[in-house]
Amino acid sequence: MRVGETGGYSAAFFTMQAMGLMAAPANASELKLPVGSGKGVRVAILGGGVAGLAAAYEMQKAGFQCTVLEARHRPGGRNWTLRTGSVIEFDDGTKQTAAWQPGSYMNAGPARIPSVHKTVLAYCKELGVPMECEINTSRSALLQNDHAFDGKAIEMRQAHNDTRGHVAELLSKCMRQGSLDQEIGKDDRDRMLDFLRIYGDLRADAKGNYVYTGSNRAGVSRMAGAGNQTAELRPPLEMHALLDANFWRGMLFEEDFDYQATMFQPVGGMDRIPYAFAKKLGNLVHYNAPVTEIRKTPNGVRILYKQNGTAKRVEADYCICALPVTMLKTIANDFAPDVKKAIDATTYNDSFKIGWESKRFWETDFNLYGGISWLSTGPISLVWYPSGHLLSETGVVLSGYSGERNSEFGRLPNMQAKLDASRAAVEKLHPGFGEQLQKPMYVPWGKIPYNLGSWANVGGFGGGGGGGRGRGRDGGGRGDAPPQPASGETPYQTFLKPDDRIYFAGDHCSHINAWMEGAVLASHRVVEMISERVKSSAGAKAAAV
Amino acid sequence: MRVGETGGYSAAFFTMQAMGLMAAPANASELKLPVGSGKGVRVAILGGGVAGLAAAYEMQKAGFQCTVLEARHRPGGRNWTLRTGSVIEFDDGTKQTAAWQPGSYMNAGPARIPSVHKTVLAYCKELGVPMECEINTSRSALLQNDHAFDGKAIEMRQAHNDTRGHVAELLSKCMRQGSLDQEIGKDDRDRMLDFLRIYGDLRADAKGNYVYTGSNRAGVSRMAGAGNQTAELRPPLEMHALLDANFWRGMLFEEDFDYQATMFQPVGGMDRIPYAFAKKLGNLVHYNAPVTEIRKTPNGVRILYKQNGTAKRVEADYCICALPVTMLKTIANDFAPDVKKAIDATTYNDSFKIGWESKRFWETDFNLYGGISWLSTGPISLVWYPSGHLLSETGVVLSGYSGERNSEFGRLPNMQAKLDASRAAVEKLHPGFGEQLQKPMYVPWGKIPYNLGSWANVGGFGGGGGGGRGRGRDGGGRGDAPPQPASGETPYQTFLKPDDRIYFAGDHCSHINAWMEGAVLASHRVVEMISERVKSSAGAKAAAV
Repeated sequence: MRVGETGGYSAAFFTMQAMGLMAAPANASELKLPVGSGKGVRVAILGGGVAGLAAAYEMQKAGFQCTVLEARHRPGGRNWTLRTGSVIEFDDGTKQTAAWQPGSYMNAGPARIPSVHKTVLAYCKELGVPMECEINTSRSALLQNDHAFDGKAIEMRQAHNDTRGHVAELLSKCMRQGSLDQEIGKDDRDRMLDFLRIYGDLRADAKGNYVYTGSNRAGVSRMAGAGNQTAELRPPLEMHALLDANFWRGMLFEEDFDYQATMFQPVGGMDRIPYAFAKKLGNLVHYNAPVTEIRKTPNGVRILYKQNGTAKRVEADYCICALPVTMLKTIANDFAPDVKKAIDATTYNDSFKIGWESKRFWETDFNLYGGISWLSTGPISLVWYPSGHLLSETGVVLSGYSGERNSEFGRLPNMQAKLDASRAAVEKLHPGFGEQLQKPMYVPWGKIPYNLGSWANVGGFGGGGGGGRGRGRDGGGRGDAPPQPASGETPYQTFLKPDDRIYFAGDHCSHINAWMEGAVLASHRVVEMISERVKSSAGAKAAAV
Repeated sequence: MRVGETGGYSAAFFTMQAMGLMAAPANASELKLPVGSGKGVRVAILGGGVAGLAAAYEMQKAGFQCTVLEARHRPGGRNWTLRTGSVIEFDDGTKQTAAWQPGSYMNAGPARIPSVHKTVLAYCKELGVPMECEINTSRSALLQNDHAFDGKAIEMRQAHNDTRGHVAELLSKCMRQGSLDQEIGKDDRDRMLDFLRIYGDLRADAKGNYVYTGSNRAGVSRMAGAGNQTAELRPPLEMHALLDANFWRGMLFEEDFDYQATMFQPVGGMDRIPYAFAKKLGNLVHYNAPVTEIRKTPNGVRILYKQNGTAKRVEADYCICALPVTMLKTIANDFAPDVKKAIDATTYNDSFKIGWESKRFWETDFNLYGGISWLSTGPISLVWYPSGHLLSETGVVLSGYSGERNSEFGRLPNMQAKLDASRAAVEKLHPGFGEQLQKPMYVPWGKIPYNLGSWANVGGFGGGGGGGRGRGRDGGGRGDAPPQPASGETPYQTFLKPDDRIYFAGDHCSHINAWMEGAVLASHRVVEMISERVKSSAGAKAAAV
């Protein structure tokens, strides 16, 4: 407190931060380019996803002359919200059109924002995007394994609290036996036992041992009510059975730093963010304009693209390439050999999502408002309930979200088999309700033109990416710095450097891979690099004159 | 699954429910009184809180002739939302008037609804009250103890995940030593170790022991970013220090069945619920009408009240008394001796809340969106951040919510000292920001006329109440049936029976004490009892004719 009192807010803040006792701010500095500093400088921005849009938004504020080329008729890239009328077309021509109720929607790409992703949240505030809570985990959500509990789903609150109860009981047993007298000093022994009693909601048995015999934390088999209606506890699930079930991934997921119980979403769909950017940018964004060639010129770049069947071009002083690496593999270019090598070496994950419109039986019959249920066996690993329009009649529930390659789901023979598996997963969790699912929309990112993948594989980046997404998928894991390769440059390191006047951006150029925050921070980084370069070359010119 | 396949939804549902594997529905039956069944029957309903309003709403739908007498100028009772212009007047005349920004509000009474409180949520839906998520816990919330960590606040995510890490490490040590070979079979030993590794986010050290050396779950001292900015882990807090801090109450609170991470609130304030009831009831509700006498007549009741200084009366066939028991102590009445005894024996808790308007520094500087921070020492035990209007400029933060009687807070000499303590608690959690708090509003329910207390003390009910509120306050605890007294009737049991034609309602007549759900279920119960009585007396009359 002394520092706070004498040094004011800043001193206290940074001291505490240095001690690791407070949330660090999301980033060292907020991006602020000098107004007018980009005057007369032309920038071609490839890709109207969140990275490209954020770059254009910041640069045009500073006076740069920006052109954004977007292959699709809409902004956002992977930030794509499906509503009635939305069309999914695979690269093989397969087509689906959503025909849902007004208000029903599905975020095919990003669908939640952690509160620690301050840059994206700051944009939402600045652009006036109304936000609401995204409920990422719920104790009413379910965990299911074909080989445990006769295949019946367990409530998250049972798994969590019965597990903790057993762990606390076992540890208290060890402590009473003296097994940990070396590790836990005598002074702490009793305090530790007191703690374990609260931690696990244990009771003392006749011999004074702390035992776990169930807890209201694990839910009740009968609710309390008026008059004589008292609550009834559930008998605890046995540790042996919980070990069989292996629910840990779904349970611990909520503790991962970037997947918390409550997150954010824009009201009405995640694409409210790119549309808000696009509105600010107006006709700087050229739609239906897929890039066909990326060329270097003596003092800049020349980008060739097609628009409505016509070949067009844009000349610029700098280029920010915010296209997926998968696309760079298909576009003629003048990239340096190390960049070509990095592009070749990069592979993408091929995650899919399947959404269904349905009556909200998960709310009415399961007290489930948002959150994610997990299945340990079978081709579908999760069912994700909507956080928008809670308590309304219908909504879009997701059944299935994972990678297809080398997976049980990916090996299913066709789309109908995949949809059947998706419905069956809901039926396993919510027996009798699977048939309520209607009008599925299947988004296999590996087959979506202009993406052909969901996000860069961290592996492909030789330790570069190390982003949140890989960790989130398999639960647990670590957020510390990835190991450096023994020798040579990783693809990730290559994409961090400009190739002449071409700069690479996108979440794959950040350590927050597969998140919008990574995309905008990567854009901020290259925008600053270009701004510095313009400033020093202007300085050089002035000196020469 | 067999049952589900052969018996359809219902069979599967009820079988699973019987096995305790699924959420039980909130209540056995939804209230449905036969339309017109109350025709010609007059009911006086005392108290326009949620219990009285719900009773009147249901009875008028069935044709009963209802009169609701409410002492205040507004409906809702303890369900009271303060906004600019709201006046708090103590029983000693002390007066405060809120002068806040539009949109700023504070729920002085109930402030969150669990998803398992289906009856209240069903009313919100039926009455068209727009709902949103109430964020009840956040991993970014803080825990503070003057005597631990030099008084510095710790993030909830550190306390939770460092504690689990240490517990998992200690237990894995015991298991490797063979201390639990009797409890955990050999088959389970390795699976248990695998589980503990994931559970605690442990690493294997050089000797193959699983150790806890920190986890990204506990947060980072540096966020990951673009380019070369990798995340940095925090060093773990030591178990010894965590035991010193004794944070368990604040940490485990979120696991209590009725206090989950995400709950519900009406958009704009909890009083949207009573106002929605009141709108439906129109002039059935008489405001500024405090009851002065409750009398029995040969075939009904006579209620005397005052309105604008004039003595008035209402005669009715039945009475639902939904006043706080504290008020019954002050009203002349014809109650039976056992009821008078029950009233005498009942005491109320005197919880208070203090709210302050402030810039949302907890959001901008601490990534804290909703949730509750806890202080283990000092007169203020918690700071509760608003879930409404997230990401806006200002909001009302609560600093202080607990009982006053026999407490450190209650012993503070005057209101200024209490407000100073409230501000100091925020300063402890958020050094340098205490001064941002403005325009406090202090609601001591023990001093609020027409309540003189926050909720019935469960103790005073001799084991009857057993409601959620007592448990929630002290963390942990059990939801099973309270023990019955050795002999005689508890006050709770007395209030469950009608006194002639007078029926008692309110949350204190339920096992969901201090919650709106208890209030409406208690009303449903007596409304059904009256409906049955009317039906059988009509039958008797018809038989007599």
